[in-house]
Amino acid sequence: MSSIKNNLDMFFNPRNVAIVGVSRNTRKFGHVIFKNFLESSINANIYPVNPNTDEILGRKCYKSLLEIPGQLDLVILAVASRYVLNSMRECAEKKVRGVIIIAGGFSEIGEEGKKLENEVLKIAEQNNIRIIGPNVIGIYDPYSGVDTLFLPRYRLLRPKKGSIAFISQSGAFGSALLDFAASRGVGISKFVSIGNAIDIDAIDILEYLEQDPNTQCIMMYLEGIKPKEGREFLKIIRRITLKKPIILLKGGLTPQGQKAAASHTGSISSQIEILQAVIKQTGVLQAEDALQLFDMARILAASPLPKGEGIAIITNAGGFGVLTTDQLVKKGYNLAKLDKKTIEILKSRMPAAVIVSNPTDLVGDADTERYKIALDTILADPNVHVVIVIILLSLSYVESDIIDVINDARVRSGKPIVVTTIGGDFTRIMVRMMEENQIPTFPNPKRTVDAVKALLDYKDICERKEECDLV
Amino acid sequence: MSSIKNNLDMFFNPRNVAIVGVSRNTRKFGHVIFKNFLESSINANIYPVNPNTDEILGRKCYKSLLEIPGQLDLVILAVASRYVLNSMRECAEKKVRGVIIIAGGFSEIGEEGKKLENEVLKIAEQNNIRIIGPNVIGIYDPYSGVDTLFLPRYRLLRPKKGSIAFISQSGAFGSALLDFAASRGVGISKFVSIGNAIDIDAIDILEYLEQDPNTQCIMMYLEGIKPKEGREFLKIIRRITLKKPIILLKGGLTPQGQKAAASHTGSISSQIEILQAVIKQTGVLQAEDALQLFDMARILAASPLPKGEGIAIITNAGGFGVLTTDQLVKKGYNLAKLDKKTIEILKSRMPAAVIVSNPTDLVGDADTERYKIALDTILADPNVHVVIVIILLSLSYVESDIIDVINDARVRSGKPIVVTTIGGDFTRIMVRMMEENQIPTFPNPKRTVDAVKALLDYKDICERKEECDLV
Repeated sequence: MSSIKNNLDMFFNPRNVAIVGVSRNTRKFGHVIFKNFLESSINANIYPVNPNTDEILGRKCYKSLLEIPGQLDLVILAVASRYVLNSMRECAEKKVRGVIIIAGGFSEIGEEGKKLENEVLKIAEQNNIRIIGPNVIGIYDPYSGVDTLFLPRYRLLRPKKGSIAFISQSGAFGSALLDFAASRGVGISKFVSIGNAIDIDAIDILEYLEQDPNTQCIMMYLEGIKPKEGREFLKIIRRITLKKPIILLKGGLTPQGQKAAASHTGSISSQIEILQAVIKQTGVLQAEDALQLFDMARILAASPLPKGEGIAIITNAGGFGVLTTDQLVKKGYNLAKLDKKTIEILKSRMPAAVIVSNPTDLVGDADTERYKIALDTILADPNVHVVIVIILLSLSYVESDIIDVINDARVRSGKPIVVTTIGGDFTRIMVRMMEENQIPTFPNPKRTVDAVKALLDYKDICERKEECDLV
Repeated sequence: MSSIKNNLDMFFNPRNVAIVGVSRNTRKFGHVIFKNFLESSINANIYPVNPNTDEILGRKCYKSLLEIPGQLDLVILAVASRYVLNSMRECAEKKVRGVIIIAGGFSEIGEEGKKLENEVLKIAEQNNIRIIGPNVIGIYDPYSGVDTLFLPRYRLLRPKKGSIAFISQSGAFGSALLDFAASRGVGISKFVSIGNAIDIDAIDILEYLEQDPNTQCIMMYLEGIKPKEGREFLKIIRRITLKKPIILLKGGLTPQGQKAAASHTGSISSQIEILQAVIKQTGVLQAEDALQLFDMARILAASPLPKGEGIAIITNAGGFGVLTTDQLVKKGYNLAKLDKKTIEILKSRMPAAVIVSNPTDLVGDADTERYKIALDTILADPNVHVVIVIILLSLSYVESDIIDVINDARVRSGKPIVVTTIGGDFTRIMVRMMEENQIPTFPNPKRTVDAVKALLDYKDICERKEECDLV
């Protein structure tokens, strides 16, 4: 965190970008980053830097940053740590505003690396340069086209435009989740890997995302959290999470995990108890594992806030209805009591085999039309605020038009709808289509219920806003 | 359950099979089942029955069971519940040994259905006919080719031959998991949907599976469990689970869930507390949700029993190493302390950036060779009994030869190895290849650790066998 006004546009919307260390070897990070920039939709000038060649991929290559004409907003250092200081000096001379340092080999490897980190930071502070990194994979922004992920796109899929922002201290963790999200049709607004975070840290990015119109929800994987300015810090987090839910997965919540984290990103975790208290006080939602982080972000990004806790289940598979009920009850929820009118309508319009209750079991031969009637009727019930739709496709007459039916019901009712489905290839295609229609989809009752709980927890946080505001 | 010797071969290895209710309509259950039998590898005569046609799919069609020449081992009733009694009478006359009743519309819909069920059961008992069902999708056995799943194969993929048996009270639940298993390369030994289980129940199937050479591990989804013969029942379960681990997912563990189960399979659950005590006493492993059932079965079917609780982590992604450590510690495990010799060897053979410890972080640029050295060295450590290998592929130099390296290490060391990996399309292909090589693979630290815990719990159950044997 710095005293400079937090405007990080040079990172997310640069007009002039240099990449230092662009090798002719197609496997090297610098080469891949340069190629990805050339192939991206970015509206910017891209300059490769490599003292040993005049041309890369048909573009003029520069011997040093100082040779590049005009102002540079962003410099990406794709060189080994031992070359970083020299590049930083060139950045200072060139009055560069933002630098991303990819290389590892800093404080995470010990004293020597820590010393190097301090020298880099000194140059940055003296010259008003903001730094992301070191030890990062950098930024992916599908809106502007900034893409410093140094893996080719066939290996690491890029998610489409979406409304979930993702801050990850670990680059490998971040890239794996991006790849996962992309393959499932889930969009991203911005991804930032902050690594050792010697200058720009999670708070800086959060404040930037607070203003980002494309971001609805923020998910974070952090190992080290520095308490720093105390109350001020808490107030910022609190303010942001009430506007856009923040979901945190903290690595190193046990002493042994902390030890592993220290050798990974050089992070020294604050005490676990303090951290937990902070999280509670600020209203940040906490995920317990990697997939839950992703699940919570998906439901919060896609759903309107429910107006109550009445949950209804519609299913074509009795077993999954039973298991979902068990999970909800274990989490302390009760199923909504359906209104008399709802039950009357359903009974009059459904075959005798359908069990009209909560769960409503449409039974195995349910088709899309039966789901449509059930959805429209149950969503109109004033006691129902969230609907869990279970659709097992492997044994059903449901076809892909179910997606339009759910999407339409979701938009018209203004109530959150989530889907549980599990299966093989056909199911996977359907899941992807659902996600592309902003319908959060989970493979089993437990993950569905955990996600619904996150949504209801966030509702509580927003409603109790006044009561527990930090003074 | 029944006094007849439990030989269910007529269901799993029939030589003469009739399917009653084979419509010309290609969407009808009977038609699909008949077609699937014709396309399967089964070595049996298959007879379609339909009073209204002479020919189906080029085969002679019979007006009734009585027209079929010779003995029938197995009859599949793919007719509506109102026709079942008549078919049962024909089965009696034909001295049929096994009947699968697909249709719903029995005790799960109330008194009238219950009455019908009793009449069916009476005919069965008087004529020595064993029944699976009603309200089932029946059997899938990739070894013999029996396949009564009434969904076409493009919609519901069939798993290959494997060593996991699966008993499901719910057909929809069962078919969804089969489809899921098939798409991930996981094999199955036998699948049986028992539905209302008016005759053959989970215990009968368990006793059959106890003798089945293809079955290593048994997973079950049950809603109703009848205490029945008390101590005798417990002894059977106990005996089987010590030979082949049994994993149970119980639907209806809350009063509300029980209510939903009652309308689904007509099950009245025994009291929850009694049930939990039974499970504990018998050493049956309990899953908390659908995916965990599948995860536990995969690890138990593929792994030798570990000889101790020493767990080592090898990773190319620091963050996942940290999260896995946290999860292990939360579950009460400690990471193995690596032997001095192990550390020496690793340090001498690894680049300086690699963090030789537990977790051993091979760092982002690890290739297959680095994994091979780490695996071989760490598996040779006497303090290590289980290895968790984390491979994030999206940001790595690891190629598909990693699968052969892990498989070789697994076979040679005789120690359990599990893999954590998450990502997009490339990762999915790798996961499938790993599963086909008996390497259990999980997408996140939590699921990996839950699975490892199941394996260690089962080890404890087997070791404490004498202490807590039922008298």
